Amino acid sequence: MQSIHTNTGVTNTAILLIYCQDKQGILASVTEFLNENHGNIIYLDQHVDHEEGLFYMRVEWELDKFAIPREKISDYFETLIARKFGIKFALHFSDKKPRMALFVSKMSHCLFDILSRYIGGDWETEIPLIISNHETLRPIAARFGIDFHLIQKNEKNKADQEQLELDLLNEYAIDFVVLARYMQVLSDQFVSNYPNRIINIHHSFLPAFAGAKPYHAAHQRGVKIIGATSHYVTADLDAGPIIAQDVVRISHIDSVESLVRKGRDLEKIVLSEAVYKHLQRKILVYNNRTVVFN
Amino acid sequence: MQSIHTNTGVTNTAILLIYCQDKQGILASVTEFLNENHGNIIYLDQHVDHEEGLFYMRVEWELDKFAIPREKISDYFETLIARKFGIKFALHFSDKKPRMALFVSKMSHCLFDILSRYIGGDWETEIPLIISNHETLRPIAARFGIDFHLIQKNEKNKADQEQLELDLLNEYAIDFVVLARYMQVLSDQFVSNYPNRIINIHHSFLPAFAGAKPYHAAHQRGVKIIGATSHYVTADLDAGPIIAQDVVRISHIDSVESLVRKGRDLEKIVLSEAVYKHLQRKILVYNNRTVVFN
Amino acid sequence: MQSIHTNTGVTNTAILLIYCQDKQGILASVTEFLNENHGNIIYLDQHVDHEEGLFYMRVEWELDKFAIPREKISDYFETLIARKFGIKFALHFSDKKPRMALFVSKMSHCLFDILSRYIGGDWETEIPLIISNHETLRPIAARFGIDFHLIQKNEKNKADQEQLELDLLNEYAIDFVVLARYMQVLSDQFVSNYPNRIINIHHSFLPAFAGAKPYHAAHQRGVKIIGATSHYVTADLDAGPIIAQDVVRISHIDSVESLVRKGRDLEKIVLSEAVYKHLQRKILVYNNRTVVFN
Amino acid sequence: MQSIHTNTGVTNTAILLIYCQDKQGILASVTEFLNENHGNIIYLDQHVDHEEGLFYMRVEWELDKFAIPREKISDYFETLIARKFGIKFALHFSDKKPRMALFVSKMSHCLFDILSRYIGGDWETEIPLIISNHETLRPIAARFGIDFHLIQKNEKNKADQEQLELDLLNEYAIDFVVLARYMQVLSDQFVSNYPNRIINIHHSFLPAFAGAKPYHAAHQRGVKIIGATSHYVTADLDAGPIIAQDVVRISHIDSVESLVRKGRDLEKIVLSEAVYKHLQRKILVYNNRTVVFN
Repeated sequence: MQSIHTNTGVTNTAILLIYCQDKQGILASVTEFLNENHGNIIYLDQHVDHEEGLFYMRVEWELDKFAIPREKISDYFETLIARKFGIKFALHFSDKKPRMALFVSKMSHCLFDILSRYIGGDWETEIPLIISNHETLRPIAARFGIDFHLIQKNEKNKADQEQLELDLLNEYAIDFVVLARYMQVLSDQFVSNYPNRIINIHHSFLPAFAGAKPYHAAHQRGVKIIGATSHYVTADLDAGPIIAQDVVRISHIDSVESLVRKGRDLEKIVLSEAVYKHLQRKILVYNNRTVVFN
Repeated sequence: MQSIHTNTGVTNTAILLIYCQDKQGILASVTEFLNENHGNIIYLDQHVDHEEGLFYMRVEWELDKFAIPREKISDYFETLIARKFGIKFALHFSDKKPRMALFVSKMSHCLFDILSRYIGGDWETEIPLIISNHETLRPIAARFGIDFHLIQKNEKNKADQEQLELDLLNEYAIDFVVLARYMQVLSDQFVSNYPNRIINIHHSFLPAFAGAKPYHAAHQRGVKIIGATSHYVTADLDAGPIIAQDVVRISHIDSVESLVRKGRDLEKIVLSEAVYKHLQRKILVYNNRTVVFN
Repeated sequence: MQSIHTNTGVTNTAILLIYCQDKQGILASVTEFLNENHGNIIYLDQHVDHEEGLFYMRVEWELDKFAIPREKISDYFETLIARKFGIKFALHFSDKKPRMALFVSKMSHCLFDILSRYIGGDWETEIPLIISNHETLRPIAARFGIDFHLIQKNEKNKADQEQLELDLLNEYAIDFVVLARYMQVLSDQFVSNYPNRIINIHHSFLPAFAGAKPYHAAHQRGVKIIGATSHYVTADLDAGPIIAQDVVRISHIDSVESLVRKGRDLEKIVLSEAVYKHLQRKILVYNNRTVVFN
Repeated sequence: MQSIHTNTGVTNTAILLIYCQDKQGILASVTEFLNENHGNIIYLDQHVDHEEGLFYMRVEWELDKFAIPREKISDYFETLIARKFGIKFALHFSDKKPRMALFVSKMSHCLFDILSRYIGGDWETEIPLIISNHETLRPIAARFGIDFHLIQKNEKNKADQEQLELDLLNEYAIDFVVLARYMQVLSDQFVSNYPNRIINIHHSFLPAFAGAKPYHAAHQRGVKIIGATSHYVTADLDAGPIIAQDVVRISHIDSVESLVRKGRDLEKIVLSEAVYKHLQRKILVYNNRTVVFN
């Protein structure tokens, strides 16, 4: 099922994410480089972390009058600017839509929320693949015309099954993976294939209540606010760089069941916010933390 | 498309919504009435508005051992309790699923959010009918197997077309209507057929920015927070009893376009919250205000 | 310095906090007991925790026409109602102002917030005593005309110094203690003298970042929201029953210093909210959790 | 009463607030101007409003090695940069503490909150003057050692009394005025003397419930969230540029009285946030809107 809306007439842009030790002149040099080559800047945000002495920047400019051909931008920037300041950078193009794979289990709320944005035309992405360890959500995938693969794992076959998953990701040319309440722990080996490219939603306000059954734990502890956390997956469970969090007030009236109900809304909104920021190339990761540009 | 989940083994309950002048003994009388007749109370919330001298109550009890047959409860309660205290009440049964009709235009986010909860089995409702003034969302209705009727109105044919809508609502035995960003004003005549049974979502923090283009108005005014408001529709535009509201912080960085994007999440969550409360029979309306029980 | 405002003409009330196994008829029995004896109920809230099978209630009624003399209410209620249902209860009178002692260190924001509400006449309390381990805030105590005692502790003299504190609390007839960023851990022995009567503010969203330097830990972890938590002090550090929590959004832009600044507003509001609820006798503690009535 | 804390060892900085039509090269030119003259930039934030084609910027740099003497910076920047791009700018120095006058009536919560931050050393400001139309808060001013002037107005003497106020503001060398729940409308003539330098707190979520008795109006309308708004005062009542807003959830349970109580916390936090941003020179006003830098 294709998007019911189409975007037309949007100018292609280049996006540069920059990260280096803070030094005088970086900002001026980068903006001059773009100005001199007729790159019309439509977004610029930068930040200096004075505690760590680090400079971060996201700049986006229009390609249509830019003097440097797009395939050479990376090379020119590396040679003319990056080397001088010791800059690490990533270059993206707005007309390259990242391809997403969804990993799901039985719960549908995050899946639906993502698909509704996809079909609604809110996101610049392609979603060709859904992988699950249960059949439950296959009918939904079918309604949306997205390939659905059942891959069930147990302790014994986990490595083999993950290899099947990696093969599928490769076959479908997937750029990043979204765990939409997948409820399975991926191996370090799997994760290492997609560094900062696997987004998970954890149904608690991390670092509180990491691990299993966070709503039960929250209820047991008697907190007055619950939360949800989206983060990049790393080798350490629920300990990767946090992208987005949100919370909702609860009270003694709430049972575990009502926490689960209220939490669903948090989970889907917080996960989709993280995916949106990832698609916009607005996330930069360092020291297991994120810079999320506005 | 049926729900992918099923609820089983749930006991049927009766729900009583009560509203009257506050007097001594109402609460004791109502709870005694239920206790004496072996009605196991599973929910009770009440409130006294001391400014207006009014008493409100919602009580829910299990029917299986209740001594009074369900078809006679209303009569008995009227005779034995309500008359004595001048109580106005509404009686509902949990096994009677309210039937919802959705009115939509071109935007899909609220529609999707409602359908995802419906299909996900979160709500006790039936949604047999979608009415729209545009063809845009027909494919989505089709995917979910819900009847979709195009009814286009102009100034000249509005009365006739609304009659068609009322006929459809009647034909489908609709209990209440949800305007999921319908973008059309219903006539007083239409509204009078469904008092406190038409739920609208307005994309502002009412009473600020009632009427058209609230995000433009919010941006123009330079507010630092935007909101969304769900309310029952009355004859006065955007002035009906408010059911739920939520807000999100914005800043000078936000364009009208980004307000629209951020607002979508508010709108769908706030509308669905109102629908959920309506389905739970937790809303009581008086003096153009709502009591929304927890 | 006395309050700049005075409350006059307020009727004295009795407040009953109730807690027992849920059984049929408790609510009706309690309200009848009050109605029959001409106790005009001005507040009633109750809740059943169906997971634990527990019933909670707070009811407040006017004393002026109540048939039972205030000194006999407890006895009558115990005999006529409580025994029948196995109710545990606490009885309070609105004209008995709880006496508060403040424990402070160097930071003034929570102290000021509490004193401003006290002087502003917002709270029904007396604050005759401030204890500190530093001289820093003595001038503020002096300005407000409140006795200030310096009691410095080290590992060696802790038990003796705490005994001095207990003597002071006794001498000043203190009902409950508020740790307004006191930054010292009280011994179990001390705490056991004031069960559910010592309120602390912890500068994190507990259970995340318990212990020392939570803002540093939050910054290090890269969370997107920080919080503050008020709770009753128990033998376990930062693990007592939570009374109130609040949060504020942060981003990669925030340094530890700005977290500290933003956190101050959270801390003072969350602590004062807890004190207010305590003064209103709206908190009921069980299983290391709180019921906080509206 | 002086601050109980002192800041030492802080380097003096210059702060430039910039505002102009967006053109290529502004950002590079400004940062180069500072870099070339050895101005170590410690803060830079900029934004382009693409809808209006406007560029905004706040940059702050250390003065100690800056090549241009502070008294000549404005002239040099005007000549070398501002003319070229048509930039409007304001230049501030961090060691020049703005002097604040407080206008109050009878309510103490905003006054206390501001004084507690002042005394606590959180703010770089001087507060030598409090003006009120009531005697109520004179004792508090006395406790804090701040001059208090009673200036009572009626319809007849308003112009004369405002002239007295203006004379006092002049005498005390006041830079900006904070209306801490002053409850009086200032004349256009008065306001015109302090453009974007009078900060008011309105006890509603503007533009909803402008004018008198907003909590009564909010209760009457049955909103589910209330708010507070700080803004610069202009000739139009409650219609000046909004600086900060915050909200809190309410329900049918809340009486007007409890809205007033909950609103007090909003009011003081939102007003103090606006004052803080003003003191930090982080607010830029255009088209009756504010840019509030982080």
